[in-house]
Parts: sequence; structure tokens; C-alpha cells
Amino acid sequence: MDVLIVGSIALDDVKTPAGEVTNALGGSAVYASLAAGYFAPAGIVGVIGEDFPEAHIRLLREHRIQLEGLEQMPGNTFHWSGCYEHDMGTAQTLKTQLNVFAGFSPKIPPSFQETPFVFLANIDPELQSRVLTQVHKPRFVLLDTMNHWIDQQRDKLIEAMAAVDMVVINQEEARQLAGAANLIQAARWLRRQGARGIIIKKGEHGALVFWEDQIGIIPAFPLAAVKDPTGAGDTFAGGFIGALARRGEINFETIRTAAVMGTIMASFTVEDFSVQCLSRLRKETIELRYDELHKMARLNTKPVSL
Amino acid sequence: MDVLIVGSIALDDVKTPAGEVTNALGGSAVYASLAAGYFAPAGIVGVIGEDFPEAHIRLLREHRIQLEGLEQMPGNTFHWSGCYEHDMGTAQTLKTQLNVFAGFSPKIPPSFQETPFVFLANIDPELQSRVLTQVHKPRFVLLDTMNHWIDQQRDKLIEAMAAVDMVVINQEEARQLAGAANLIQAARWLRRQGARGIIIKKGEHGALVFWEDQIGIIPAFPLAAVKDPTGAGDTFAGGFIGALARRGEINFETIRTAAVMGTIMASFTVEDFSVQCLSRLRKETIELRYDELHKMARLNTKPVSL
Repeated sequence: MDVLIVGSIALDDVKTPAGEVTNALGGSAVYASLAAGYFAPAGIVGVIGEDFPEAHIRLLREHRIQLEGLEQMPGNTFHWSGCYEHDMGTAQTLKTQLNVFAGFSPKIPPSFQETPFVFLANIDPELQSRVLTQVHKPRFVLLDTMNHWIDQQRDKLIEAMAAVDMVVINQEEARQLAGAANLIQAARWLRRQGARGIIIKKGEHGALVFWEDQIGIIPAFPLAAVKDPTGAGDTFAGGFIGALARRGEINFETIRTAAVMGTIMASFTVEDFSVQCLSRLRKETIELRYDELHKMARLNTKPVSL
Repeated sequence: MDVLIVGSIALDDVKTPAGEVTNALGGSAVYASLAAGYFAPAGIVGVIGEDFPEAHIRLLREHRIQLEGLEQMPGNTFHWSGCYEHDMGTAQTLKTQLNVFAGFSPKIPPSFQETPFVFLANIDPELQSRVLTQVHKPRFVLLDTMNHWIDQQRDKLIEAMAAVDMVVINQEEARQLAGAANLIQAARWLRRQGARGIIIKKGEHGALVFWEDQIGIIPAFPLAAVKDPTGAGDTFAGGFIGALARRGEINFETIRTAAVMGTIMASFTVEDFSVQCLSRLRKETIELRYDELHKMARLNTKPVSL
């Protein structure tokens, strides 16, 4: 297995101007592992309740996601309800029922402990740090977080960030955590906390990748219709680490290209509710979208002469 | 002369977290002509008052901006006072004194009437339409606007937009005018009004270019320090039409590349107040920045294999 993903597994109720779903498969580890799985063998560590539908397990199995780290506990699965307004910007959380997720403490199965690429999806930073004590010298660790932990666990979060190779964070959270309105300055502050690289996600505007002293500008694939933005960031991170694992080498070039794959994968997620689009992709569909993005975003080697 | 620019000439008071200036050279036609002038011979049509400093005229002359269309009227020059908050987002207008600009009616001198590339910078859409009756079959006309005209002169604006080749507009204004939160949908609506192409400016997130059925994604040059965003959009448009005129051909490729030059030029404008940075550029500085942007934003021809 090349990619280990630790995060939430959820049943989501989501309402957007394009429709709604209830009890739909969701959670950061689900989106990320499905995206990563297109590029490299991936496994998840997470917790589900007794209500978790067998069909969802089957879907993950069909995608060859390794499930030895899937823990089932008495009670219900983590349940999130949210809605999006007309502009599909930030989600409004209507209800969060942690259920079995409240007592989640990731246990990395022995067969997962040598995984070279690790994605610590958005969970309590203390748990993220605890995962790192259970894996043996991974080659690359990526960490995601959210505003909740910036507000509630700032010190623990900064401690966890210092121990990883790369932090992925959205632009509002980067500004909030760093206390800087300018994203380049925010990224510099974040890098000073210890990670070698930072990815700042900008939603429909793409992402900025900071690796040592270099900056990569990652375009987003333009979509005329977004049905449900839920999971876009997790899909981006999963596609990124999957593609990076697939490439094998870790440098500015492979990181930038992997981030472009992340943005491509995220563009599929938002085209439908839950994992309905993400889970049904063919290799050719992904490659075609890459070609389309390349046509739109490539730059000529030379500028217009002056 | 290759590029005719019709717009405002102003004396600006601007305050930002990085400092402030008073009576500084500004106005859409000034920023646009300086930017265009690096690529192709440009001239402006605009009005100044008796208070307009001779030094500003000299600066335009030094840049070989043709000034036969510069009209001096009794009274004071258009004066804008504005400030920007911490995040350097949208300007807050403190005071607008139209002065001589209130009676402005562009008169295109005979020597300008055959100019092939025309930029109608942000002025009353009725005046923009009137300019087009005074020029002989220009090859390419670009039109800019602002929220004020969307609110006050919506019908006249849509009429003016129908008569040009391309409309450049910022993302908030595009959403407002089209009544669509999604930018691709907003651009489609705008194109249905008649122009062949639309550029949606997204500030620090770059721009989207729509030309017939193709989309171009234009990155912005990332800057760690922005001193004054005033004139960025005008500089972008001026750099764009100057570079397009320089290339001579009009197709998706030349339009996209010209827009990248626009984004490069705008990145200089915001690095200092007024035209302090924009007016002091060397060819090599612009080319170097293009190379840097290319390193950050280029895409590989092939995706990561799946």
C-alpha cells in the first residue's frame, strides 16, 4: 500500500440550490481515499457506527481501498448536515452529530505502518500527532485542518504542523492562522512553523503551492455547474497525495503536477452530490479533463515581445 | 499609432496600509496607456483641468504616449480620493470630484481615427458608444465598465457592449450584471449580449478569458507586498490590448497570451502607489517577471499516469 489516509467517515445530509441528499456517503477519508485510489493503492483508518450501510463498504472495496483500518463501534456513524447558498461558497453547518467519531483514536494496523505516503485529513491535531507515533518513517506526510482546530487547539495544531512535510489549508484558514491578509505572507508564516511545504486551497480559483522557496500556481478546472462542493478539499488532497505517490519522487515539479491532478479530481467531486461522480470515473475521463485544463491554462514559453 | 485609449485622467488621493499619496497621477486612460505603450504606440483621448501638473504631461510624453487627444478645460482635473483596508480588497471611495470630467465628451482627433485597436476604458457607456461613431472600422475594440454604470445605465451599457469585440469586467460586476453567481454562466450571459469575447478579472486570482467557445485561465503574479491596488484593472486592460496589437493577429492564442502580459503589467502597478512602478519599467524587468510566472504556472503536457 502506498497511501495511508486517516480521517472521518460520515453520513451527510447536504442541501444546495441543485438539490439535496440524506445519509449520503461522505467524510474526509472517504473522498481522499477514492481520489488517491485512482493513482496508487490506498487504505483508510477511520471509524464507522453500526448504521453504516454495507453498500458503502462495498463501494470502497470495489475501489480497492484497503479497509483493515476501518473500525466499527457501537452507536451511529458521524453525521453532518449542511447547506450551501446560491454562490456555493462556504458551507453552513446545520447539525454535527459526532456519534462514534467522538471517541475516535486512530489505531494504525501493522500492515499499514510502513506506508510511505500519509495523509492526516482534518481531525483533532492531537490525534494527527498520535498517528505519526504509529507509522515508521513515512517518506511524506500531508496534514489538513479546519477553522475549528485553529480556534480550539491552536497550539496543538501548530505542533502537529511542525512534524509533517506539507500542510494543506484553505485561504480563509491560512489567513486566520497566520494573521496575514496576504497569502504569500501567510504561507511564509506557515512554513516557519516547520513544514517544508504549504498548499493554500482557493476553491474555484485553484491553489497556491509553496515548496521550499518556490511557488506553484495551480488552476482550478472551470465548471458551469457545481452541484455540491462538499468534499472538494479532501478530494484535492487525496488526488494530490495519490499522484505524488504514483510519481514516487518528491520535488517542486512532482508536487506541482500532483496538485494539478488534485484540482482535476476535485472538479469531478463538485459536479454531483456525495461521491456519485468521483466514484464513477474512468481513466480516460480524467485524462481528457487534464488535456482540457492544459489547453486553457498552459503558458507560452516566451512572452509577447516588447 | 496602434492603440487608442479613451478614459479618465485623474489626480488621486489614495491611502492604504502601506502609506498614502495625494494628487498622484491616476485615471484609467493613464494606467492603460502606460501599460499599452510598452508593447505598441499608444495615444489617449481624455480631459484635464488647469491644475494638471506639467510633470505628468512630461511623463506621458517620455513614454511616447500620443497626446493630440488630450483636452485641457477651465477648472480642475477629475479628483478621486479612496482608501483600502488591510486586505487590499475593494476600494472605499471617500470623495469623487468630477470637475472637468463632468462635461467630458470624447473628441477623436483625425490623426487617431484610423487606429486599429481601441480601448474604451471605464466611462459613461453613452460616451463609449459615441467614440465608436468617430473611429473608422477599428480591428478590435475592448470595453471596460464599473458597477456605477451597471446600476445607473444598464441598458445603455448593454447596448455599448453589443458593439465591441471584447468586454473586460471584474468578477463581482460580471455576477451583478449577469445575475449569475457562477462565472462561466455569467460569461455566457455576457457573450449573449453580443461581444465575441469576455475577460473576467479576479484580482489576485488572475482572470478568465472567454473567446468564442474557448476558455483561457490567466494566472496572477503572486506578490508578497501590495502597496496600492489602484489602476490594476486598467493596467491589465492596457497591457492586454497593447500586447494584442503588438502580436497583430486576433485569435484565442494571441488573446490568451496578451492577457498574460496584462496580468504581468498589473503586478507592477500594485507594487507602488500611482504609476511609480509602472512608469519605470525596463524591458528586461517585464521579461524576467514573465519567466518567473511561467515557472510557477506552466503545466506539463501529460498528466500523472493513472
